[in-house]
Formats: sequence, C-alpha cells, structure tokens
Amino acid sequence: MSLYLGIDGGGTGCRAAIADAAGRVLGRGQGGPANINSDPFGAVTSVLAAATAAMAQAGASPADLTAVLGLAGGGMQDAARAMQARLPFARSLVVNDAVTAARGALGADDGILVAVGTGSVLAVQRGGQLRQIGGRGFLMGDEGSGAVLGRTLLARAMRAGDGLVPDTPLLSALRDEFGGFEGIIAFGTGAAPARFAELAPRLVASDDPAARAILDQAVAQIGDAVRVLQDGDRLPVVCTGGLGPFYATALAADWPVVPARGTGVDGALDMARAWAP
Amino acid sequence: MSLYLGIDGGGTGCRAAIADAAGRVLGRGQGGPANINSDPFGAVTSVLAAATAAMAQAGASPADLTAVLGLAGGGMQDAARAMQARLPFARSLVVNDAVTAARGALGADDGILVAVGTGSVLAVQRGGQLRQIGGRGFLMGDEGSGAVLGRTLLARAMRAGDGLVPDTPLLSALRDEFGGFEGIIAFGTGAAPARFAELAPRLVASDDPAARAILDQAVAQIGDAVRVLQDGDRLPVVCTGGLGPFYATALAADWPVVPARGTGVDGALDMARAWAP
Repeated sequence: MSLYLGIDGGGTGCRAAIADAAGRVLGRGQGGPANINSDPFGAVTSVLAAATAAMAQAGASPADLTAVLGLAGGGMQDAARAMQARLPFARSLVVNDAVTAARGALGADDGILVAVGTGSVLAVQRGGQLRQIGGRGFLMGDEGSGAVLGRTLLARAMRAGDGLVPDTPLLSALRDEFGGFEGIIAFGTGAAPARFAELAPRLVASDDPAARAILDQAVAQIGDAVRVLQDGDRLPVVCTGGLGPFYATALAADWPVVPARGTGVDGALDMARAWAP
Repeated sequence: MSLYLGIDGGGTGCRAAIADAAGRVLGRGQGGPANINSDPFGAVTSVLAAATAAMAQAGASPADLTAVLGLAGGGMQDAARAMQARLPFARSLVVNDAVTAARGALGADDGILVAVGTGSVLAVQRGGQLRQIGGRGFLMGDEGSGAVLGRTLLARAMRAGDGLVPDTPLLSALRDEFGGFEGIIAFGTGAAPARFAELAPRLVASDDPAARAILDQAVAQIGDAVRVLQDGDRLPVVCTGGLGPFYATALAADWPVVPARGTGVDGALDMARAWAP
C-alpha cells in the first residue's frame, strides 16, 4: 500500500494528514509544538503523536508512508537530517515549514507567503523557485510573530513601569496580572515562545495605545519584508498562520492579498505525492 | 573573629573580598557567572568558588563571615531568599548587583549609576534612597548591555543577509565566521548571555556603519534612561561594568560623568560592615 503523510508543525502545534495517491484524505491527527531546533525531543514527540493518530484513523502503518514534514526550525540542515534518520516511515523528508506552507498556499504559482503564527517566516515563489527570508527564531528574528509580539508587550509593560515609556491601561493591567516586574521576569525565564504568543490575540484585539504602537511597528516590519520580496513586482500575497488574518487586513492596503489555496498540510501531502517513486 | 565578605556577581563573572572591621582587605577571589535568576545552580557554584578562594587567602572560615552579595538577578526576591538560606556564612544578605554597585560607586552621595556589562541596570541615589530602573534580564530588557548588543549585531547580520537592511563589511564577515544563517542560529540556541557579550568589545572598537548604528541606538536608550532618572537635576553620573568606559565617553557630552569611588565589591563590603551587629 502506498500512502502519503503530510505534516505541518509550528511553535504551538502540528497537524498531520494521510492521503492516498488520488489525494483522498484517509486520516488526520494533531500534536504539540514542533520546533526541531529549539526543542528536538519535543518536536519528534509531537510529530509522532500527530502521525500515530492519523495512522490509526487511516488504518495505515509506518512502512506504508512516504512522509513530508514541514517543521519550524526545519531550515537547520543538521537538525532536519538527524530527525529524518530517526523517523519510522518508509521515506521521510524534513523541510522548513515555510516550504510546505508556500506549496499549500501558492501551489505552483508565483506569489509571496507571509506565514505568521508563534514564529514568522516569509517567502517568495517565482518560476517554481522558493526564496525564504525572515524567520530565524524567537531569539534573533521572527519579527511580527505572536511570540515576539507577546515578549515586546511584556518588555514594554516593564519599561512603562520604570517610567521609560508612557504607561497605558493595558500595560498597567499586565503588570498587575503577572505580579509586577518579578512576576513578568519569572514568567519569561525558560518560557517557550508559545507561552509569549498566548498574549498575541489580546494584543490584536486591543485598542490600547501601547498595543497599537507595537502592532504598527510589526506591520511596518512585515510590510518592509514583503516590499523586499516583491522587488518591484506586485505578486499576490497570501497570509497564513494564527496571525494571518491580522496581517492580511493590514497588508491589503498596499498589496494584492489573496486567500491561501490550501494549508501547510496540503502542501506537505502534495510534496509527498510528487516525491514518491 | 568578625570578618566581612563582599561579593559582586554579574553575567560574566564574580569577585569576592574579605575585610576586617577596619576595612583592611585580607583575601580576594574570583568565580564564574552569577545570575541567580537565569542560572541559580551556576550562580551558587561561582559564588562559593570566589568565596572559598578569598577565605583561603584570608585564613577565614564561613562561620567568621558576615556576607553581602550583590548578584545579577538578585532583585528576584524568591531567588535571593532561596540562595541566602543555602549559603554557609554566619549571616548572608543577597541583593541585586545594582545595589552594591551603587554603594561602591556613589558611597552615600546623590548620583546616578549606569552599570553596563553583560547585563545592564541603572539607578539613582537621592537622600540615601536608591531607585533602580532598567535591567530586567537578557530576554526582555538589559538595553545597551553587552549581551543585547551582541545579539542585536547577529540579528542584524541575518537581516542584512536577507536584504532587509543594508549589508556592511562587519555583518558579512560575521556571517562567514559563524557559518551563515544556520551557524548563527545554532550559536544562539541555548547560548548564555555572556557568549553574546563576547562580541561587544569588537562592536565598540568598530567603525563599521552597522556597528555605529547599533551603538548609537544603545547610547540613545541609556541616555533616555539617565534623563528619566535625573528628573530635571544634573546629578553626577558614574558608569561601571565592562562597557562603563564606553558609556562614560558617550554620556559625557550631556551629563557630568565622574569616576566611581569604588567597585561593587567595595560596596558589598561597606554594606556588610554597616549591617554587622
């Protein structure tokens, strides 16, 4: 039996689907965060949980499966190869989640992907070639991502408490909720990016001046990156991920924003079928 | 025998001294990084290494010592109390390193402390009252610190590689040295702040446009914080820490910058003598 497993994994969770050669989906599953750079052990656990659920539903075994996994951190070649070698499927290919997201969102067409959830990454597809920029993780990149937005908000709450920037109702409320400076620092110590990203929906929904300032800066950063990728063109822009709808609205003033054709799981399944012998 | 132990511990190393009631120093020692919030186990190890060396030189035993320890992360009350309870000295007081640095640098005088090494913290002393701002750690604060400067430099090297900001010789050289994007990300994964801070001396010595832009922003942030602490006054400003000389030069254009009276170890010893029964 020849079946195909597609997995899309980000900083907050991963999703799996198994399909046959005709593209009919036979099983689906979900798992936890899957960043193979910052937490390789957690990532393999999450991936196998999602795959196992999908296999149970599809009545499939690992030996049946040609698997393509688009995972956060999958751009790190050593980590990707180490994971590939450990997976139980007949064939496994681990790529960055931007690759599967772009394939799902754009198909074979030219266009720009703005994928923003817990992390962020952008890519342009031109003539079948994909060029990725941004991303690079929570510590030194992921501009505009949910995790970076949450961290920026908490940092600003502390700076406002110090009198370094104007205080606002939202910042003051956060200091109270977290237990002041010490509580915020304790929260941050060792917290996974997904914990910071939990603040993003509240930020996006807020009309607090500090929230607007943080979001305006994030939109400007993502907009700059789209401009670099357009390189004078006006390619269609697809926004995916948990913050996709927010950036779609914000970017629509400047660029032709279009809906995604499919998900990262669709892209991974599509790649798996194309890769099969 | 009544002796006094003063310890000053930051993100890169800690220094200890033992003195008698007359202030005569009988022994000194050094140890590794001592941030009790981000690495409590490492901090207690470093502190005991430094204290043990000082005790050996002074011919003192723990039961002789009234100890004051100014440590990075010492503003976190729970962490400070937990460490106090575990230390072997007759009496132990753990405070934030800004407190001992201010006592050493300013004595009892009014003034402003700008302490910038691996981390950063600022404080104003007015009428014997100390008010600390900034700091808050590598993840969400420590503006202008060596670790934040190093991280900002590497992040900018990646953004320049993506075409998001202008590339420069320094940024291009860093990408080569670290092994490209993957090498930079791998370096950052789990690296202690002190590793990032190792880039700071090179940044400060460089006339590369990216280095100047990063340093100009850091000086502006530290300058803003000094302005907030001055609150309309023109108190003397003391700059300490590994980057103290750099900020002293930069701030001297706007403020009366004066040399420190003493070190953080001097401040800790002074507090220990004042605290003794």
